[in-house]
Amino acid sequence: MAAVVAATRWWRLLLVLSAAGMGASGAPQPPNILLLLMDDMGWGDLGVYGEPSRETPNLDRMAAEGTLFPNFYSANPLCSPSRAALLTGRLPIRNGFYTTNAHARNAYTPQEIVGGIPDSEQLLPELLKEAGYVTKIVGKWHLGHRPQFHPLKHGFDEWFGSPNCHFGPYDNKARPNIPVYRDWEMVGRYYEEFPINLKTGEANLTQIYLQEALDFIKRQAQRRPFFLYWAVDATHAPVYASKPFLGTSQRGRYGDAVREIDDSIGKMLQLLQDLRVADNTFVFFTSDNGAALISAPEQGGSNGPFLCGKQTTFEGGMREPALAWWPGHIAAGQVSHQLGSIMDLFTTSLALAGLTPPSDRAIDGLNLLPALLQGQLMDRPVFYYRGDTLMAATLGQHKAHFWTWTNSWENFRQGMDFCPGQNVSGVTTHTLEDHTKLPLIFHLGRDPGERFPLSFASTEYQEVLSRIAQVVQQHQEALVPGQPQLNVCNWAVMDQAMFTCRRETASSPQSQLER
Amino acid sequence: MAAVVAATRWWRLLLVLSAAGMGASGAPQPPNILLLLMDDMGWGDLGVYGEPSRETPNLDRMAAEGTLFPNFYSANPLCSPSRAALLTGRLPIRNGFYTTNAHARNAYTPQEIVGGIPDSEQLLPELLKEAGYVTKIVGKWHLGHRPQFHPLKHGFDEWFGSPNCHFGPYDNKARPNIPVYRDWEMVGRYYEEFPINLKTGEANLTQIYLQEALDFIKRQAQRRPFFLYWAVDATHAPVYASKPFLGTSQRGRYGDAVREIDDSIGKMLQLLQDLRVADNTFVFFTSDNGAALISAPEQGGSNGPFLCGKQTTFEGGMREPALAWWPGHIAAGQVSHQLGSIMDLFTTSLALAGLTPPSDRAIDGLNLLPALLQGQLMDRPVFYYRGDTLMAATLGQHKAHFWTWTNSWENFRQGMDFCPGQNVSGVTTHTLEDHTKLPLIFHLGRDPGERFPLSFASTEYQEVLSRIAQVVQQHQEALVPGQPQLNVCNWAVMDQAMFTCRRETASSPQSQLER
Repeated sequence: MAAVVAATRWWRLLLVLSAAGMGASGAPQPPNILLLLMDDMGWGDLGVYGEPSRETPNLDRMAAEGTLFPNFYSANPLCSPSRAALLTGRLPIRNGFYTTNAHARNAYTPQEIVGGIPDSEQLLPELLKEAGYVTKIVGKWHLGHRPQFHPLKHGFDEWFGSPNCHFGPYDNKARPNIPVYRDWEMVGRYYEEFPINLKTGEANLTQIYLQEALDFIKRQAQRRPFFLYWAVDATHAPVYASKPFLGTSQRGRYGDAVREIDDSIGKMLQLLQDLRVADNTFVFFTSDNGAALISAPEQGGSNGPFLCGKQTTFEGGMREPALAWWPGHIAAGQVSHQLGSIMDLFTTSLALAGLTPPSDRAIDGLNLLPALLQGQLMDRPVFYYRGDTLMAATLGQHKAHFWTWTNSWENFRQGMDFCPGQNVSGVTTHTLEDHTKLPLIFHLGRDPGERFPLSFASTEYQEVLSRIAQVVQQHQEALVPGQPQLNVCNWAVMDQAMFTCRRETASSPQSQLER
Repeated sequence: MAAVVAATRWWRLLLVLSAAGMGASGAPQPPNILLLLMDDMGWGDLGVYGEPSRETPNLDRMAAEGTLFPNFYSANPLCSPSRAALLTGRLPIRNGFYTTNAHARNAYTPQEIVGGIPDSEQLLPELLKEAGYVTKIVGKWHLGHRPQFHPLKHGFDEWFGSPNCHFGPYDNKARPNIPVYRDWEMVGRYYEEFPINLKTGEANLTQIYLQEALDFIKRQAQRRPFFLYWAVDATHAPVYASKPFLGTSQRGRYGDAVREIDDSIGKMLQLLQDLRVADNTFVFFTSDNGAALISAPEQGGSNGPFLCGKQTTFEGGMREPALAWWPGHIAAGQVSHQLGSIMDLFTTSLALAGLTPPSDRAIDGLNLLPALLQGQLMDRPVFYYRGDTLMAATLGQHKAHFWTWTNSWENFRQGMDFCPGQNVSGVTTHTLEDHTKLPLIFHLGRDPGERFPLSFASTEYQEVLSRIAQVVQQHQEALVPGQPQLNVCNWAVMDQAMFTCRRETASSPQSQLER
């Protein structure tokens, strides 16, 4: 299905702004798009977001030369659904990246799962190709293992990476190690052709992913516009770094991984400048979900002042670092308080390409160009889902929790803690608590750590509740849930119980690792 | 007693660096010194330290034009002792700003207290006067109420401010409101001549303090070098701001106060530039202790990712924002990982003035100029005291807790919480726990939030413990405690019980407020 190519107001603006960006034909061409998606990196992991060791000079410089978003959100507290949302511009509840096996169940795409990104979803690279873009994904796909879900069947011209996290090593007889692909060809497997030393943390993968990116940029810079989706995973447990970076961070092995990624991004931005295409390349940096505090301190990052982490719908689970860089277009050193979402990268990228989003379906992503180029602030809600359940919603500065849950008492007692050192009575609950009748409401400006719910009796509470309830009602009335893709009664695709499948695969390494 | 005026290595360097700074006589003169000391402001309160609302553009610019310290500490988790330490360069246990009434007791200088800064202590302004400086304190003194403790008896040429916090309003019959002085003269009282509206939070005091600073700078800029100690208190509960700032922050009233201070500092730095003395004025910004989380969210700040707040010896209680600015001398945009202390401002200021610290007593402050001008990192411990008790020590990246305590169960159960939303089992204890035999040790790089103590069995633990124990032993063997100045069996000077005085004044507003 063709996307509508329309000369929008933004496209006209871009024509003026990017007059220097001429294609081989001499006609103006839309800017290159480089999306840098981190894995389990937290809001607090960058120096410019307050990480005390301040070991991200390149990302900090990217912020100083571009726009920083303090209020930017993933679409889900887990990898797969968040990535599906980025590439479709739609909430996981719409694009099918959720399960109805149990309520508020986080689920992803381990090797066993049969689901994946449906053909009916229109992915960003599919649409960009229609505007003449050459598209590549480097790194983690995470939208399904089966042949019909292969990235090259969903709009990418090139792929170097894997369909899943670098879990392992696995017993090759019962379950193979995760494969690594170059385009259609499987070129090896993690822990085999692509070694990861779990003991030392050494792996050369980020360097390989960097080289893939640099080669692609060099090749494409003077040709057709490119879309490069750089989805590295060194900061996902088991975290890794290459030898020159191992042991260099004050933060331990997780910090080594961050330093290598920061260095790599510095090299990419420098290459764009050396090739004189920086002013014709829109670069955006963010992460798929909050830091996995369960892997802290050695293998997990930081969510700064926010509550809890990955797997939860507290701020620590879904608030992300986000930087936009486009010299000559985006003003240097700006901060935008626009409420942003990873899904906005879909709509914004289309706008950059002169495209409008598909009109035959609900799109949750917003075009961020008015925020980036004109400092506009647009009203929009943020919805926090876990699986099939709308847990919370933010409107302006206020966040209402309709349900609260960290993980089960059973898992918590076993030492699985999504909120280590944090405990807010009645908020960080270990049973799925229903607040739909009387939501817990926080003011995220005064109380970013979600520690002090507004008094139910306050005028502020009443006024906010009425506004949020209206927005949520509209959202839920219009919602057409997609066919759940992660709906398999298989322990390996489920996290943190309250689920009644027999636990025959509970001891598999995968279900233990993707926590 | 005269300080030794010595042509140190630093002084020679400064002669070269500040060749432009000539006095009226044409002889080179040392730089002006402007210390900006905040009250209860936390590490996480500045945009550049990761505060999500990012409402401190002037301080963020000061950081971009100077050096930021992520690892800078106050000398105590409470106001009075910390301020005494700044001005003497000595730990409160040495200069007498502690109590022996009970162990690990925080104490300060409310109106009733008879103690204060002893004459035997040599204060920074006393010493700077000997090098020709004109000295002024604007704002909160907090080193004693009685006539012998008056700032003009301890080296300051001028004072505009008060001997204590702006607590109140008090019942004038039983206890008067806190006085405000201009030099020797009492010019009014808080809540009377200097109104503070507790209901709206409106007070004009920061504007008055700003004007005092600007007037002094203008007057002194082309004369003898000045030392200005700007000790505002708008961020101490009850927080206040003037009308133009009230309601302007996303963070509520506390944020309004921060915004007004940020704006004021911007005006001071601009004046230094307009007067062309910026390159001859050393400016340092920090805070007296961590954010008072007990007053959060409406009247307390943020300690970012750190544990607990004011009154505690966890990082949130004593780690502070710290910025140094001296255009043309301190390179722009630097981060120094030097372990710094508020007491270093004493020694550093003396070095700037060409003075060396008194040699007849122990001085805890370090000269930071090698860190600031040459990027050096100097080994030094940080000691965390509560009253008479050494609670913890940091060496390099490792922090050892010898005692842990937040506050008593009694106070905690009454709702007095120094660590809201935070709870680290065995660490944030409500009884004073003795770990001297087997200290809890944290790696602050990997675990800035003090959530994951090192395993006692690890090689790292054993190695670190041995190094820290040696430093602590040296410290304790050489320690000559000062005569305790806050040793009054008066409920009003004591916080958070485990103390056996009769509670006859427990209901006084003051003891309730300074929490």
